[in-house]
Amino acid sequence: MSVEKIYIFDTSLRDGEQVPGCKLRKEQKVAIAEQLDIFGVDVIEAGFPISSPGDFEAVQEVAAVVKNAAVCGLSRAVMKDIEVAAQAVKNAVHPRIHTGIGTSDSHVKFKLNTTREDILDRAVAAVKYAKSFVEDVEFYAEDAGRTDNEFLARVCEAVIKAGATVLNIPDTTGYCLPHEYGEKIAYLRDNVNGIHKAILSTHCHNDLGMATANSIAGVENGARQVECTINGIGERAGNTALEEVAMILKQRFSHKYTTGLNTPMLKSMSYLVSDTMGMPVQANKAIVGANAFAHSSGIHQDGVIKHRETYEIIDPADVGVDHSSIVLTARSGRAALAYRFKELGHHLTKDELDIAYQYFVELADRQKEVIDSDLEILYSEKIYVLA
Amino acid sequence: MSVEKIYIFDTSLRDGEQVPGCKLRKEQKVAIAEQLDIFGVDVIEAGFPISSPGDFEAVQEVAAVVKNAAVCGLSRAVMKDIEVAAQAVKNAVHPRIHTGIGTSDSHVKFKLNTTREDILDRAVAAVKYAKSFVEDVEFYAEDAGRTDNEFLARVCEAVIKAGATVLNIPDTTGYCLPHEYGEKIAYLRDNVNGIHKAILSTHCHNDLGMATANSIAGVENGARQVECTINGIGERAGNTALEEVAMILKQRFSHKYTTGLNTPMLKSMSYLVSDTMGMPVQANKAIVGANAFAHSSGIHQDGVIKHRETYEIIDPADVGVDHSSIVLTARSGRAALAYRFKELGHHLTKDELDIAYQYFVELADRQKEVIDSDLEILYSEKIYVLA
Repeated sequence: MSVEKIYIFDTSLRDGEQVPGCKLRKEQKVAIAEQLDIFGVDVIEAGFPISSPGDFEAVQEVAAVVKNAAVCGLSRAVMKDIEVAAQAVKNAVHPRIHTGIGTSDSHVKFKLNTTREDILDRAVAAVKYAKSFVEDVEFYAEDAGRTDNEFLARVCEAVIKAGATVLNIPDTTGYCLPHEYGEKIAYLRDNVNGIHKAILSTHCHNDLGMATANSIAGVENGARQVECTINGIGERAGNTALEEVAMILKQRFSHKYTTGLNTPMLKSMSYLVSDTMGMPVQANKAIVGANAFAHSSGIHQDGVIKHRETYEIIDPADVGVDHSSIVLTARSGRAALAYRFKELGHHLTKDELDIAYQYFVELADRQKEVIDSDLEILYSEKIYVLA
Repeated sequence: MSVEKIYIFDTSLRDGEQVPGCKLRKEQKVAIAEQLDIFGVDVIEAGFPISSPGDFEAVQEVAAVVKNAAVCGLSRAVMKDIEVAAQAVKNAVHPRIHTGIGTSDSHVKFKLNTTREDILDRAVAAVKYAKSFVEDVEFYAEDAGRTDNEFLARVCEAVIKAGATVLNIPDTTGYCLPHEYGEKIAYLRDNVNGIHKAILSTHCHNDLGMATANSIAGVENGARQVECTINGIGERAGNTALEEVAMILKQRFSHKYTTGLNTPMLKSMSYLVSDTMGMPVQANKAIVGANAFAHSSGIHQDGVIKHRETYEIIDPADVGVDHSSIVLTARSGRAALAYRFKELGHHLTKDELDIAYQYFVELADRQKEVIDSDLEILYSEKIYVLA
């Protein structure tokens, strides 16, 4: 079986950047875009050009500097939006316009106050208009997660005829469960005439903590583009975390799928985005959190010291982390203590270790972590004097 | 169809607390345990009593104060561990001992350097010994996620015979995909003799971002206890986040499952744990992050102002958040600006709003967020003077 390419569409600079506290200056956007390009994402959604003059200029500059990835600008299914987006991305090596409209009953009725037929017409008109500026037009069916599949299929069919190259099926509210989202993608793959002319794309939100699982369910059912953000930033509870999708595809699906990502850049990309936006990543964030490769319980440390794969399914080097760390706390055991003493050059006998461990546990009960300098003091005061 | 109870087993004070930086003093553990009890969790895993004298005392005090939940102490399948755990939980209203051993080839071979038959013997001996102290004995099959199902079923059968009341099936390394984990639970449900005498429990780690999806897959396939932590804290990338499981069961499965949790306490429980441990929760964390109910893009704000359900699937009050917030940034639109002016008591005409919006966008391009005082200045300098 041949290995299929999964396109990675990064929207850190659009869905990520639109969030409270995450706004970036133009030069910051450009700096991140340049790194995303080197990192190997396939599409960079650089912004929403109509939203403000500053964002328009930022998208324009990103388009000018990115060498490999497609550069994409967001627009509503509104002619003025599309014109401005087209203007912003026109100097890109691979320009893309991302346009769309709400398709769920909630959107059609309450937000847009119109009918399904009108939505269909506006969707087609938007794609056609975008197509007059660029070849590569992605259509989003907003709130597709809660859209009736039959109507969604009609919309997809119509926009493919109008020239859409990518169909984005967003679970805008983060409502779907993995089997539901997977079935939706499968339904479109199996029921939309002309679906082979376009790429199905996932765009999942994490309101229930299911964004990554939903995206993977989408891929397993026919999606070939995944929209995601570094550190999972994005509106409300955020988007699918790029680093999670990257490592799931690499660790569990390498026989079926591949991406263009240079995964050893994951940790530095995470840091770049977190630091530039001033948005901390929590210590237990999968793949890129400070503790993702830290082992502290005695049971785990013992296992890792004997054989890394006992508790680690990812080689830290694969995501750009130097090595897994053995952190000494009150839950650590003798094996970890001996290991850390050895790293400091002290090879303890069994009796010395027993003595050291007693003192260590008392110390560890009083403080959060026992560090090298504590161990040196313990060694010189309690062990060395015995020798 | 009757609604089934899903037992919530909180291990914030054990798997969560064993993490670098998360260590708690005894009185902090007790304070959190008291709140967990009021919150309605069914089991509180209070610590690993053999690990240190401080943790032993903490478990003992938690056991003394908790009124409704079972209080559980962890132990390896080692007689001394079990004795100490039994001693620590003995004054609990509902004491539980949690004991177990690694069952995957990786654990049997590399970590424990033994045979499957020996593991079986040690598992049975541990459960029998624990049973001599308490009625309620939970057995964990460490690294069950990577354990061959047939052997796992043999272990489960043997420990049920020995008296285990709960079977914990941990995906210790966070390796499983949801369908794999679900199939594992279903296999045990269908192939273990006497399975009706015990409760199957999930315990998932988030190394690939799949912990929540795996836990839900477990429930859908027969698990009736979910092990989780507040904010998803825990070893490495952490455990299943309690808040995500709680809200998925409530929002998507209320016709099938129920928990004893008082979900409007979720936000304050999150804050209590984060603040006591000094472990920040990232802004885009599902359910409990600062931005989980914040809307900033113009497209979304417009929808939420018209009809909350357009973009929100959870009522903020259901998780203890006052209300969803409309945050003004460079990506906000006219509807949000008018809404925020209205909240300040300024009802702008369409022409006034057009003028205000021009100034607003320029201002928003220069700063991350536009706050009330900015709006008051904008109003008095640009709008009021026109009137």
